[in-house]
Amino acid sequence: MERPICFFSDYGYTDDFAGVCRAVIARLAPAVRVIDVTHGLPERDVLAGAVVLRNTLPYMPDGAVILAVVDPGVGGPRLPVALRSHGDRLFVGPDNGLLMLAVDLDGGVDVAYELSNRELWLKPLSATFHGRDVFAPAAALLAAGLPLADCGEPLAPESLERIDFPLPRRHRDGLTALAVLVDRFGNVALNVRTRDLEKARLADMVELIANGERYHARVARTFASVRPSDIVVLIDSYGQASVAVNAGSAAEVLGLEVGDEVRLRRLA
Amino acid sequence: MERPICFFSDYGYTDDFAGVCRAVIARLAPAVRVIDVTHGLPERDVLAGAVVLRNTLPYMPDGAVILAVVDPGVGGPRLPVALRSHGDRLFVGPDNGLLMLAVDLDGGVDVAYELSNRELWLKPLSATFHGRDVFAPAAALLAAGLPLADCGEPLAPESLERIDFPLPRRHRDGLTALAVLVDRFGNVALNVRTRDLEKARLADMVELIANGERYHARVARTFASVRPSDIVVLIDSYGQASVAVNAGSAAEVLGLEVGDEVRLRRLA
Amino acid sequence: MERPICFFSDYGYTDDFAGVCRAVIARLAPAVRVIDVTHGLPERDVLAGAVVLRNTLPYMPDGAVILAVVDPGVGGPRLPVALRSHGDRLFVGPDNGLLMLAVDLDGGVDVAYELSNRELWLKPLSATFHGRDVFAPAAALLAAGLPLADCGEPLAPESLERIDFPLPRRHRDGLTALAVLVDRFGNVALNVRTRDLEKARLADMVELIANGERYHARVARTFASVRPSDIVVLIDSYGQASVAVNAGSAAEVLGLEVGDEVRLRRLA
Repeated sequence: MERPICFFSDYGYTDDFAGVCRAVIARLAPAVRVIDVTHGLPERDVLAGAVVLRNTLPYMPDGAVILAVVDPGVGGPRLPVALRSHGDRLFVGPDNGLLMLAVDLDGGVDVAYELSNRELWLKPLSATFHGRDVFAPAAALLAAGLPLADCGEPLAPESLERIDFPLPRRHRDGLTALAVLVDRFGNVALNVRTRDLEKARLADMVELIANGERYHARVARTFASVRPSDIVVLIDSYGQASVAVNAGSAAEVLGLEVGDEVRLRRLA
Repeated sequence: MERPICFFSDYGYTDDFAGVCRAVIARLAPAVRVIDVTHGLPERDVLAGAVVLRNTLPYMPDGAVILAVVDPGVGGPRLPVALRSHGDRLFVGPDNGLLMLAVDLDGGVDVAYELSNRELWLKPLSATFHGRDVFAPAAALLAAGLPLADCGEPLAPESLERIDFPLPRRHRDGLTALAVLVDRFGNVALNVRTRDLEKARLADMVELIANGERYHARVARTFASVRPSDIVVLIDSYGQASVAVNAGSAAEVLGLEVGDEVRLRRLA
Repeated sequence: MERPICFFSDYGYTDDFAGVCRAVIARLAPAVRVIDVTHGLPERDVLAGAVVLRNTLPYMPDGAVILAVVDPGVGGPRLPVALRSHGDRLFVGPDNGLLMLAVDLDGGVDVAYELSNRELWLKPLSATFHGRDVFAPAAALLAAGLPLADCGEPLAPESLERIDFPLPRRHRDGLTALAVLVDRFGNVALNVRTRDLEKARLADMVELIANGERYHARVARTFASVRPSDIVVLIDSYGQASVAVNAGSAAEVLGLEVGDEVRLRRLA
């Protein structure tokens, strides 16, 4: 019984990085299906990658192998890992926190292994491309049925690196959020979920402060009732609050980048 | 008997949008083949998307499900639809005209349905990502054999939204065309086909006026006989007239964007 | 017995070019697997494409059909070709040198044919899109089992166009290299391999001269021991020397583009 591989990376599309990993998988497991979820994850941004993995996890096939690579520490001491969640998906990638928001959503870690079995690696092992030489071969073999315990030494789940998802700061009149992702339409996802807005009693119209500028913004679930160029705090399709501009780019209009603070205040 | 899915969208490559739709298809129809034709359609530009669908239709497999999403009206009153052409391809997407130039080329509408059967939608339904929640599931199930009539309420073919393909304006000495697509090489496709050039007796050398500047351009079928940097009105591989610059970008050299007018005049 | 197709091109991702070729393959050979290695090869840069094909060849499945298109001479006299290497891979593409560095690495040419059999071409044949009309159909049919000799007229292997891989120039105190590829992380691959560095006794710290500016750079196999913003001459994952900046873009920091010279000198 073969598992599909869902492949996420920050490899981009101009180079051969993701494609060579696909070729490695096809060599080792010709019948396994590879779903390229995205190779456009923000470069070297482990938190952004972890958020995308978590957001999209509910849409991945049951039993899938999640192969994910955002690996700024490649060649250093970070471990390569493979693990099974209680939701029975397998996860393969660097032990830098990238996988863990999604794993938690999928029931948490059942068992985890260091990818220390060198027989599974490509030779010669490069110092900088473990996606090709370590992670893709392991994902291919696991998808084709290799027992997880053959990957290497067992790891205690609590020893895995974790990433703190930053929470919005609460204020008397609203909250201070953080931009965690910008999409191609210029929508800016915040570290804020529907219930955070409700707890902070932010609804209908709010004041939004970004880069020292103040704006009025509507809280809405769709652009349908909003005029062009209006600024909207949208509950996006993943249940996150996003700053959006109808028929425009919020990132451009408000000059927002990942890591920027966005203040949301109730209008009196 | 499974149908392949040919997937077109303006989702781009930096986000997970197209990849999550692929994962949704793999969940519902693991054996169906997905051909990603392009996710680089110009953002929110329904006419440009319709032109690409029409241009590429003859190359799509017989019996394919054409899944296409350029959907600026998502969340508003536009209907989600599925239909069969007389050429026996299925089309799934928003009822905003996107599908219809290709459908007409494929023999016109045989039967059409609103995707109103909520049992086919993902839950919870988002307000902004019907590609994932409505169109991809319907395409997957149709590709795997679901009868079209199970999609929802029948629609009269003549009730479907249509898009007017703008025709070039004829003049005594040539015509005024519109830029409808710009490709990555900077070639600018016009709303002009071979027969339009012939009727207007535009051949060999013409005067081309763009942004108030006048150029001499050669009408040709290939760059092979043209000097570097020469401006060419090329009959492109889809039978459209395109403005091109040999070994360069016509969009940059002439400052052209989609929607700009290009005047072509016979040289006396 | 079907062969997988490994597809390389400079078609990019914003247009339908690569996707239409995939659709053509699916029409002609529905069961053949297509691995998109990259469509981000530098536009019209035959040398850069040839280097990527050579670098990635060892990772391609045995018996694969390598379909590669970087074709600035399309519509002119260059021949379309199909050939088998002594390594038993098939190669399909333009006869402009693109394929040959990889073919040489795969044991050299066994037999070669001009793709002159018009029955294999799509009709009507366009003047500018032989990827769709000539190369993709041939690759599909060969992958599905068509004998190579059915492609057209045999060609003498020594008649095939070759591309000279430029060698670094040796000096008493080091060498002058050429930038041959820039990746999305801004790493700049040079025409220099590990043994070239060793012969030139370039190790540990070197002086690097680019665009008239002098830098100190460390020769290393990984960033792990390097400080942020340090310039590194990295032996990359394909065995090439690359100029890299830890946690930054060497192309930006040093203002390097493909074709630029980079001088490496021993420090006294």
